[in-house]
Amino acid sequence: MNIESRDESFSPWRSKLHEIIFEANTPAGRIFDLALIIFIVLSVLCVMLDSVSEFRAAHSTILRVLEWFFTVVFTIEYGLRLLCVQRPWRYAISFYGLVDLLSILPAYLSLVIAGTHYLLVVRLLRILRIFRILKLVNYLGEARQLTRALMASRRKVGVFLFVVVTLVVILGSLMYVVEGEQNGFTSIPRSIYWAVVTLTTVGYGDIAPRTDLGQFLAAFIMILGYAIIAVPTGIVTVEMSNAFRQPVDNRACPVCAAEGHDHNALYCKFCGGQL
Amino acid sequence: MNIESRDESFSPWRSKLHEIIFEANTPAGRIFDLALIIFIVLSVLCVMLDSVSEFRAAHSTILRVLEWFFTVVFTIEYGLRLLCVQRPWRYAISFYGLVDLLSILPAYLSLVIAGTHYLLVVRLLRILRIFRILKLVNYLGEARQLTRALMASRRKVGVFLFVVVTLVVILGSLMYVVEGEQNGFTSIPRSIYWAVVTLTTVGYGDIAPRTDLGQFLAAFIMILGYAIIAVPTGIVTVEMSNAFRQPVDNRACPVCAAEGHDHNALYCKFCGGQL
Amino acid sequence: MNIESRDESFSPWRSKLHEIIFEANTPAGRIFDLALIIFIVLSVLCVMLDSVSEFRAAHSTILRVLEWFFTVVFTIEYGLRLLCVQRPWRYAISFYGLVDLLSILPAYLSLVIAGTHYLLVVRLLRILRIFRILKLVNYLGEARQLTRALMASRRKVGVFLFVVVTLVVILGSLMYVVEGEQNGFTSIPRSIYWAVVTLTTVGYGDIAPRTDLGQFLAAFIMILGYAIIAVPTGIVTVEMSNAFRQPVDNRACPVCAAEGHDHNALYCKFCGGQL
Amino acid sequence: MNIESRDESFSPWRSKLHEIIFEANTPAGRIFDLALIIFIVLSVLCVMLDSVSEFRAAHSTILRVLEWFFTVVFTIEYGLRLLCVQRPWRYAISFYGLVDLLSILPAYLSLVIAGTHYLLVVRLLRILRIFRILKLVNYLGEARQLTRALMASRRKVGVFLFVVVTLVVILGSLMYVVEGEQNGFTSIPRSIYWAVVTLTTVGYGDIAPRTDLGQFLAAFIMILGYAIIAVPTGIVTVEMSNAFRQPVDNRACPVCAAEGHDHNALYCKFCGGQL
Repeated sequence: MNIESRDESFSPWRSKLHEIIFEANTPAGRIFDLALIIFIVLSVLCVMLDSVSEFRAAHSTILRVLEWFFTVVFTIEYGLRLLCVQRPWRYAISFYGLVDLLSILPAYLSLVIAGTHYLLVVRLLRILRIFRILKLVNYLGEARQLTRALMASRRKVGVFLFVVVTLVVILGSLMYVVEGEQNGFTSIPRSIYWAVVTLTTVGYGDIAPRTDLGQFLAAFIMILGYAIIAVPTGIVTVEMSNAFRQPVDNRACPVCAAEGHDHNALYCKFCGGQL
Repeated sequence: MNIESRDESFSPWRSKLHEIIFEANTPAGRIFDLALIIFIVLSVLCVMLDSVSEFRAAHSTILRVLEWFFTVVFTIEYGLRLLCVQRPWRYAISFYGLVDLLSILPAYLSLVIAGTHYLLVVRLLRILRIFRILKLVNYLGEARQLTRALMASRRKVGVFLFVVVTLVVILGSLMYVVEGEQNGFTSIPRSIYWAVVTLTTVGYGDIAPRTDLGQFLAAFIMILGYAIIAVPTGIVTVEMSNAFRQPVDNRACPVCAAEGHDHNALYCKFCGGQL
Repeated sequence: MNIESRDESFSPWRSKLHEIIFEANTPAGRIFDLALIIFIVLSVLCVMLDSVSEFRAAHSTILRVLEWFFTVVFTIEYGLRLLCVQRPWRYAISFYGLVDLLSILPAYLSLVIAGTHYLLVVRLLRILRIFRILKLVNYLGEARQLTRALMASRRKVGVFLFVVVTLVVILGSLMYVVEGEQNGFTSIPRSIYWAVVTLTTVGYGDIAPRTDLGQFLAAFIMILGYAIIAVPTGIVTVEMSNAFRQPVDNRACPVCAAEGHDHNALYCKFCGGQL
Repeated sequence: MNIESRDESFSPWRSKLHEIIFEANTPAGRIFDLALIIFIVLSVLCVMLDSVSEFRAAHSTILRVLEWFFTVVFTIEYGLRLLCVQRPWRYAISFYGLVDLLSILPAYLSLVIAGTHYLLVVRLLRILRIFRILKLVNYLGEARQLTRALMASRRKVGVFLFVVVTLVVILGSLMYVVEGEQNGFTSIPRSIYWAVVTLTTVGYGDIAPRTDLGQFLAAFIMILGYAIIAVPTGIVTVEMSNAFRQPVDNRACPVCAAEGHDHNALYCKFCGGQL
C-alpha cells in the first residue's frame, strides 16, 4: 500500500484545492467550510418546509428553484472533491462520498421518476454532511475525545444493551399474558414495544396496563428502568474520565481524506498514504 | 466435596463432548455455540410471530412445524448436556438446567393439555439461554466487570430502592387523599402505581392529577424523581470506577458447569471439581 | 446539658429494655426488631387494602379487627419506649416519637370522630417507622454513606434545584403566552406545572403544546431537561466518590435515642448524654 | 480602561450605598438583600395569581394595588442602584440592569397601552432578579463551582447537543416517511418534534407511532435516548470532579457591579475598576 503513494506526481493546483476543500487550517479553507455549512443548513430547512403542506401549497415555485440551486452547488462541490483527491474511487465509496452523492441524486432522479415523496428523506441525508464541516471549529478535539470514550465503552454498553433487549422481550411477553389482547397488548411484539416505552421511561400512554397485576408488574419495570439507567452512565463516565487525559490527533489523509489516525502514525491506516 | 471428584474415571469422549458444549475455547465449541445461538433466536422469533393473530391465521402450519423442529433440536441438546456433565442431577436443578428443560417442555405438554396460551410465555424463557452463549464472544470479560460493579453496589442500591418504595407508598397515599376517587385515584394501590409512574419519570398520563394541590404535589414528586436518579447513578459509577481496575476470569467448571471463579482458583467453589 | 446526665441512677431493667428496643446488637434486640418490622409491613398493607372499595366491602370486619390489633400492639410498644428512655419528653417530641404516636392515634380518634377518611393517611405514616428498623440489617452502614454523600452535596443540589425552579417558572410563563388558554395552558401556575412535567421528562400528555412555536419551545425545554439531568448526577457522583472512602458510625444515644454522631464523639450532640 | 477609574473622587455616602445594595458582607447589606428577595418572590406570586382567571375576577383590586406597590418599590431600588454605581450607563445596559428596568416598565406602559396580556410575561422576568440575591447565602461558592464545571464542559456538551439535534432531524424525517400524515406525523418539523419528545424520554403520547415499522423504529430511538443520556452525564461528572478541587471568588466590582473575577485579581476584568 505504502509503495503506491503518488505524492510527488500530484499537480500543485490540485494539492491547493485539496487544502481548501478538505482542510480547515488556511483562511481560504475556513471560508469554504463556512459557506458550505450555510448552504447545507439552508438546504435542509428547504426540505423541511417542503413537507409542511400549507407552506408547499403557498410557495411551491420558490422551493423548486431553491432545490435546484442547492443541487447545482452541491454537484459542483462533489465534482471538485473528486478532482482534487488522489484516489477518486476510494473517496466516492467512502461514507462521506456516498452522502455527498445522495444529497444531489434526488433532484436528478425527480426528472425521470414521478414519486418524489421518498426522495424527500434521501435529501435529508444532507445534514450528515454537517459532520464534515465540524472540522471548521476546533470542536473536533472535543468530538474526538467523546468518540474515543464511547469507543472504549462500546463493548460494555453492548453487553448492557443486550441485557436490556433480553429484559424487554421477557417482560413484554409476560405482560402479553397478564394483560391480554383486550387491554391493548394485542401481540408479543406490541407488548415488547410497550416494555421498551416503559423501561426507557418514555411512557407514551397509548398502551397502558389496566389490570392490578399488570400495573404491579409495570411498576416493577419502571423502577428497574429507573435504576439501570445508572449502568451506561457509570460505564461512560469511567471511560471518559480515562479518555479526557490523552491528547488527540486530527490530521486528514491527503490521499483518501480519512481521519482518526493515531498520534504517532506516519502513514494512513486505510490507504497507506503518507500523512 | 473435593474428595468425590471423579475426573480420572470419566470417559474421554464425554470430556470431549463437555468441551464442545460447555466451553468456547475450541473451534468445535465455537461452531456449536454459534449454531445454538441462531436456533435460539429463531425459536424466539417463532414464538413472537405466533402471538400476532393475523400471522398465526395465515401461517399456522409452518409455525407448528418450526415449533416441533426447535423442540426436537433442544431436546437432543438437553440430552447431550445431561450426558457429558459428571453430575447430571446437579446440572438439571441448576438455573440453566431448568431453563433448558422449560424450553422443551411446552411442546410436549401441548400434546396432553389444551390451553397453549400460557405455555407461550414459558417458551419465551428460551431467550434466557442466550446468556449461556455469551461465553462465545469475549464480551463476557466486560459482563463480569459490570456484574462485579453491580454486586459491589447492590447493598447501596438496595437502600436506595427501599427509600424509593417507601416514598412512593407515602406520596401515593397522600395523592389518594388529595385527588380522591373521582379523579382516577381510585385506591391507595392505584395511587402508588401512579406515584411510581411519576417518580420514575415514565408519565403515561392514564392517571393524572386534576386539582391544584394535586398538581403542585405531582410537580414536587417529579422534581424529586428527577433529582434522586443521581443516587443510583453515583453509586454505580463509583463502584465501576473501582471494579474496572481488577482482572476477571471466565473459566467454566468441567464438573458442574458453574462459573464466576476467582482468578487464582484451582478448584470449583461450588462442587470442588478441578478447574 | 452534659451535667444532667443520669446514667448512674437509671434502673438496670430499663437499661436492658432500652437495649432490646433501641439497639440491634443483641439477639433479643434483633428478634424485637424483626417482629416489629413484620407488624409494621402488615399494618401498612391493611391500610392499603382498606382503600380498595371492593375489598373493604367484602372484608370490613376483619380489617377492623386487624386495625385494632395493630393499634394495641403499637400502643404497648410506644409505652415501653417511653418507659425505657431516660428523657421521655425529649423522645416524645422527636421525629420517631411523633411518628410512633401518629401511628396509634387514628384508631382512638375514630372512636370520637366520624370522618375516618383523612385518618387513613395518618395511619400510612406508620411506614416511616420502617426507617427505625433499618438498624436491624447492617444496611445502615451503606445508608450512612449515602446520607453523608447527599449531605455533602445538598448545597450544590440546592443551587441546582433553585435554578430548575426559576427555569420552570420562566418557561411556564412563556408557554402561557405562546399557547394561550384555548390549548390547555389555562393559567401561569398550570403552565408551570406543564413545564415541570416536561423538563423532568415525565411527559403525561394531559397538557401538550399544539401551536408550532409552542412545540418548538417545548422541544427546547425537553433537550434542556435531558441535558441538565447531568448536573445533579455529576454532583452526587463526585461527593459519593469522596464519601465512600470514610468510615461511619452508628451508635444511638442511650438518653434521647438520637443517631448520626461523629466518629470521635463522646457525648450526644443533641442532649449531651454520654454515648 | 484602568486609567479612568474614579475611586478617589467618589463621595463616601455613595460608596456606602453601593456596599449596602451590591455587596452582602455587611449586616445592612444582608437586610437589604433579604427584604429585596421577599419583595421579588411576592411580586412574582402576584403575577402568577393574576393569570388565574377565577382569582383575577375575585380579587382584581388588591392585585392592582399590589402591582403598583411593587412597581414603586422596584423603581426606587432601580434609582438607588443607578445613583451609587460609578458608571450608571454601563450598569443600565448590563444584564441585571435591563432585568431591573424590565421589571418596572410594564406597569408604567399599562397606563398608555391597552393590551396588558403580553406585559404579563415581561413582569415575570422579575424572577431573574433572584439570581442577584443569591449572593446573600454563600450558596454562591457552590454556584461558582457548578458554573465553572459547566463552562469547562460546554464545548463537549455542545458537540453532544449538535449530534442530538442531527439525530432528531434524521430520525424525525424517517418517521415522517414511515408513519405518514394519516398517523399524526403531518410534516417533518412535527415529526422532529415527536423525535425530540421520544429521544429525551418525555413521551407525551399526543403523537405516537401506529404502524409496526414505526413502533420498531420508535423503540430503537427510545433505547438510543436511554443510552446516550450517559454522554452529558459523563462529561459533566468528569469536569465537576476537576472543578470541585479549585477555590472560588465572589467579589463584585464597585464600579460596574460585574462578578466572576479570578481569585488573585486586583482589578475588575470588565471595567478596570479596583476590586
